[in-house]
Amino acid sequence: MTIESIHQLEDILAGIEPADQAIFKAAQDKLDNLTKPKGSLGKLETIAARTCAIRRRLDASVDRKFILTFAGDHGVVAEGVSAFPQEVTPQMVLNFLGGGAGVNVLARHVGAEVRVTDVGVAVPVFGDGLISRNVLRGTANMAQGPAMSVTDAIKAISTGMETAGQAINDGAEILGTGDMGIGNTTPSAALYAALLSVDVDDITGHGAGIDGKTLEHKKEVIRKALYVNKERLTTPVETLAAIGGLEIAAICGVVIEAARRRIPVVVDGFISSAGALVALMMKKEVLDYCFFSHMSAEVGHKVFFEKTGISPLLHLDMRLGEGTGAALAMGLIEAGLKIMNEMATFGEAGVSREI
Amino acid sequence: MTIESIHQLEDILAGIEPADQAIFKAAQDKLDNLTKPKGSLGKLETIAARTCAIRRRLDASVDRKFILTFAGDHGVVAEGVSAFPQEVTPQMVLNFLGGGAGVNVLARHVGAEVRVTDVGVAVPVFGDGLISRNVLRGTANMAQGPAMSVTDAIKAISTGMETAGQAINDGAEILGTGDMGIGNTTPSAALYAALLSVDVDDITGHGAGIDGKTLEHKKEVIRKALYVNKERLTTPVETLAAIGGLEIAAICGVVIEAARRRIPVVVDGFISSAGALVALMMKKEVLDYCFFSHMSAEVGHKVFFEKTGISPLLHLDMRLGEGTGAALAMGLIEAGLKIMNEMATFGEAGVSREI
Repeated sequence: MTIESIHQLEDILAGIEPADQAIFKAAQDKLDNLTKPKGSLGKLETIAARTCAIRRRLDASVDRKFILTFAGDHGVVAEGVSAFPQEVTPQMVLNFLGGGAGVNVLARHVGAEVRVTDVGVAVPVFGDGLISRNVLRGTANMAQGPAMSVTDAIKAISTGMETAGQAINDGAEILGTGDMGIGNTTPSAALYAALLSVDVDDITGHGAGIDGKTLEHKKEVIRKALYVNKERLTTPVETLAAIGGLEIAAICGVVIEAARRRIPVVVDGFISSAGALVALMMKKEVLDYCFFSHMSAEVGHKVFFEKTGISPLLHLDMRLGEGTGAALAMGLIEAGLKIMNEMATFGEAGVSREI
Repeated sequence: MTIESIHQLEDILAGIEPADQAIFKAAQDKLDNLTKPKGSLGKLETIAARTCAIRRRLDASVDRKFILTFAGDHGVVAEGVSAFPQEVTPQMVLNFLGGGAGVNVLARHVGAEVRVTDVGVAVPVFGDGLISRNVLRGTANMAQGPAMSVTDAIKAISTGMETAGQAINDGAEILGTGDMGIGNTTPSAALYAALLSVDVDDITGHGAGIDGKTLEHKKEVIRKALYVNKERLTTPVETLAAIGGLEIAAICGVVIEAARRRIPVVVDGFISSAGALVALMMKKEVLDYCFFSHMSAEVGHKVFFEKTGISPLLHLDMRLGEGTGAALAMGLIEAGLKIMNEMATFGEAGVSREI
């Protein structure tokens, strides 16, 4: 699905329906008939029933898994907000393609395929398997003006939707989101501050490892970006364009396309949640299609979960991004579905029920 | 390793050494050289380094996984403390052997073999693959006297050690514990109350699903058991004999043998933690060899973690036992080791380090 205007995007969002509550209930009934005390597998059971409700079928599976990782650069790194140099973005893209990054290892562990898209790297990057869909060679410095135009934000959203659509056409039963972009906790924190009305001090953290002094500077830069762009912080898409990032926009697109196509999508960490939040604020029913994989060690992620009431699956103090949390959570979601599909019923196993 | 006396057990415990801190540090250095910000994979990194320290090697793996599930019955069910009838214990043993229980599904998911031992089922039970090591046909009613003799408790501990030892001889690189025994949250809660000096009201929960009225009765039964046995609540082993269970004792034995043989052991949920606690109170260094898989939805498990300062890996509101939590956590531990063994270094991938 390619989109070219905000009106076309709005039409798509209008067509997204909630997950099927009748199927959810039927899935719970099926789970209650398995040889275990009712509800005793906790979130594994909820995961399984939710996936059935998303897929509109009681025999849902997630055998075919894809993690869609998007790379983009950020003009705001000129302000000195990151622990790593910008050249790391394309270097890590090549590391992804070579299979040596964290997301590759964890994706292999759960049997997922990683697809890497250049949606906004600052320099030309080439490599076998790379999906080259560069919209811009990095955003502009949001501390001095808008990060990008609304048109470019929509192009990046469309890139995410198209990448997700292709994976679904290739058989994906579940999608995971991932990001790579030096400096991208800065626009993510700015988006949370603007969209959730939270304080910059509460939502801004150490990212990949800046010291306390740089953290204070990062907060100042975010405040400046919010001030400079204050007239543009209106709709979710305009806010995304003003203070977001290209990879964040693409992740927003993945979430939208997953909901449109009724496929579960596993949202990775702090950056991916910012992309998902933009989608949720455009259309709240999108939430039904999302699993939030983990609570990042990046301090603001806790604030995001508290503000939205969303509950993440894992709490492992991870803060790498790339789709690493999404990969691990996919393993849990698959476990939940296997419980539903493979466990014996009380009748089959000849096991007595409650007294 | 067969043990026949408390003195022999004490000798074994005396020989258990802490995990190797120099290897832990070397493993951390290895992790810090991989293409990710330092420490950004959080608990996955700690898991990997701890496993190396346990195994005394930097290339540790957990390819060969075993979950050791022990079944035992409890005389205290005569007091009406359980939601399910006692006949479910052997019925579930057969379900385990048939591959249809929760632990079978989750063990298959992570590539673990399940071994089931009858250490104390109340009725004769037979089935292909069952390890028949019945010490007693269920404990006596602890509300009226000791659950078992110290000699029988040591026999059950020995059964756990021998089962673990056989699995290690068969190639196990990691062990998980599991339990099956109708009524066994009652002795587990009693053990926590006695060994951790916590209030019965705080540690006692709904088990497999009793109602509020039965819960109050269960607390009374536990108080009575603690009172009736108060002269016997001395050493950890005597306490285990007085108010514990045969499967709990066997799990204690698995943990001890894992520490003795320097193999990581994944402790399942509320019941398994009670068995592990007995081992820890006999020899605190045993803790170095344990991973606590998850925080059970059984209310007292939170109290156990708070009192001991131990941090569980998963928080999925599970409360099934059997080894289900241990299986899921094994998948995470394997993920941590794969990170360590498969990720590219900065040098290999040509990725720049921090500014």
